[in-house]
Amino acid sequence: MTTAEDRLNLLRQIMAQENVTLVTLGPGAHMQWLLGFHPHADERPCLLCISHNGSAFLMPALNAEGIRESTDLTFYEWDDAAGPNSALQHLLTDLKVGGKANLALDETMRADFAALIQKALPQARRQFLTSTVGALRMRKDDDEYKRLKRNAKIADNAMQAAWQVLKAGMRENDVAAVIQKSFADQGAEAKFHIIGASKNGAYPHHQTGDTILKEGDALVMDIGGTSEGYFSDITRMVVLSEPPEGYNLIHQTVDRAVKAALQAARPGVRACNVDAAARGVITDAGYGEYFVHRTGHGLGSEVHEQPYLTSTSETVLEEGMVFSIEPGIYLPGRFGVRLEEIVILRSDGPEILSELPRTLNIL
Amino acid sequence: MTTAEDRLNLLRQIMAQENVTLVTLGPGAHMQWLLGFHPHADERPCLLCISHNGSAFLMPALNAEGIRESTDLTFYEWDDAAGPNSALQHLLTDLKVGGKANLALDETMRADFAALIQKALPQARRQFLTSTVGALRMRKDDDEYKRLKRNAKIADNAMQAAWQVLKAGMRENDVAAVIQKSFADQGAEAKFHIIGASKNGAYPHHQTGDTILKEGDALVMDIGGTSEGYFSDITRMVVLSEPPEGYNLIHQTVDRAVKAALQAARPGVRACNVDAAARGVITDAGYGEYFVHRTGHGLGSEVHEQPYLTSTSETVLEEGMVFSIEPGIYLPGRFGVRLEEIVILRSDGPEILSELPRTLNIL
Repeated sequence: MTTAEDRLNLLRQIMAQENVTLVTLGPGAHMQWLLGFHPHADERPCLLCISHNGSAFLMPALNAEGIRESTDLTFYEWDDAAGPNSALQHLLTDLKVGGKANLALDETMRADFAALIQKALPQARRQFLTSTVGALRMRKDDDEYKRLKRNAKIADNAMQAAWQVLKAGMRENDVAAVIQKSFADQGAEAKFHIIGASKNGAYPHHQTGDTILKEGDALVMDIGGTSEGYFSDITRMVVLSEPPEGYNLIHQTVDRAVKAALQAARPGVRACNVDAAARGVITDAGYGEYFVHRTGHGLGSEVHEQPYLTSTSETVLEEGMVFSIEPGIYLPGRFGVRLEEIVILRSDGPEILSELPRTLNIL
Repeated sequence: MTTAEDRLNLLRQIMAQENVTLVTLGPGAHMQWLLGFHPHADERPCLLCISHNGSAFLMPALNAEGIRESTDLTFYEWDDAAGPNSALQHLLTDLKVGGKANLALDETMRADFAALIQKALPQARRQFLTSTVGALRMRKDDDEYKRLKRNAKIADNAMQAAWQVLKAGMRENDVAAVIQKSFADQGAEAKFHIIGASKNGAYPHHQTGDTILKEGDALVMDIGGTSEGYFSDITRMVVLSEPPEGYNLIHQTVDRAVKAALQAARPGVRACNVDAAARGVITDAGYGEYFVHRTGHGLGSEVHEQPYLTSTSETVLEEGMVFSIEPGIYLPGRFGVRLEEIVILRSDGPEILSELPRTLNIL
């Protein structure tokens, strides 16, 4: 199990490589990954600062007692009368952060927290965490892999639970309820679902609703949840009785796009090349304009994290990275087809976490 | 019931007064208040922009269908291949926002969203929403008052539910569980609780834990929840059998501080003067250094919002504002006493929302 100390050491190594002098995080997923916890976020500035000389929290005095249970890092406490500025200055002085700092800011932190630190270091150059904490989080260790694998199994089970009862006459929301119950029965938390029947499925992020399923519908089922602090995310297709006209060819095309991306994803390859592999199959089949989103995104303690597999992403894929491969074809007014795998990249290529085939399920 | 259109009109009036040319909000509480909904927040920039010439969303194309159900505002959609910059430029051009804009940014939005809009308007001056949306939200309309009043009643009931079963031998967490169940039984959601027995209560934001209550304990009970999109927040004190030594005097002092603040809070008075009234009572009694936080905060669709009643706040209180009055004295190693009322300011002074007396409950 990787400790907070291990991860702080990894971070300092990458800060040295990237010439970053100060990393500043708000309470959120980046901090959770680094320390194993994060304080409750509210309007009182709470910042974790990491320089080459140390790590410390800017901490609202009111909350210090509770957070002290989780960490022995130094706190620079501030109270409501004094405000945070003086405590932050002391912190930066003690961490030996000079005016010309090269600052890497948590892109998810509140804009006023970011303004506070930028005001304290007006001459600093600012970047976000893409090349530091974000980069480290992409490569999963074995413990993280196991959690993601267990989550994938839970999502597979939830998908199958829905398939067992799915039939014409149910509403999209009824299907979602079965899935949510399955996640809960397995001790996990259902976090999202897109259940899109026929023309609804042509909206990639369709808002699941009260549409009643009927014979001949093609259903996009995109579901995910969390347990042990990590996510699942999977998309499969179901057809009721008979596929709509032209469906089989589209399904096969999307599946070929998945396979092309799986084939392209190797350590050392840029993410845009994996996107290009999937997109090429769909474009060659004449449906390029109907594949309206990126090919994939990283998955871990957040449902979307680095690496992003877009047409422009220069991120070089490495062993241990976990991401989705999820091309789709969306035919307005008719139906959509998306097939999504979560993979971990091994030295010889991607290992798929789900055990469910991508073949068409006719129920 | 105030509509989104009403609130957009109010906002444009205050923008004119404050000489603000563009207000930009991320998905969150400010947008919820303004429009009655907000999109799910993720890493794809989604921004509501309001100028004197119109209102529009910068919108990830994937999510447009779902959000269209909630609003007929114009969307400037962007997809993963193009990214948001070009759509944002079109939006700003159509809203006639020039380079020298006076920009008011949602202080709670992600730092990278803020950077996106600031990069698109590099010559703009930037402020947060304190004097625009934040200022408007302070004054509650009658519908909001009624929701807050119903929430106050729910919290009163939850407090009394705990008092009915509270006894030595229970843990702090057991007390919290009773309160959570009462909120749930009333159709509300319990959102926070601080149950602090004796020396734990001397930490204003004590993390409720497994401390076992014993005879002679003084308990801080600070609880709150939500229903109908609005919050409750109340703090009362309980003593088991016999108060600790010196307790009664401290309790009376804090209650006198509450009364002094209630007396000071009038339309036209600055928030710092209300803080000073409460703080003066406690300081005169010799406990000034043990009142370690602000006197109060606004309450509405968020548990902490404007106005903040601090020693330095110049905010002028107005009729219809809702805020807490919650002085406290925290004696390290012994006990803490905090008494908290939520009030709405009427023309002749504060109306207290809770019906529970602040007198000491000896159980």
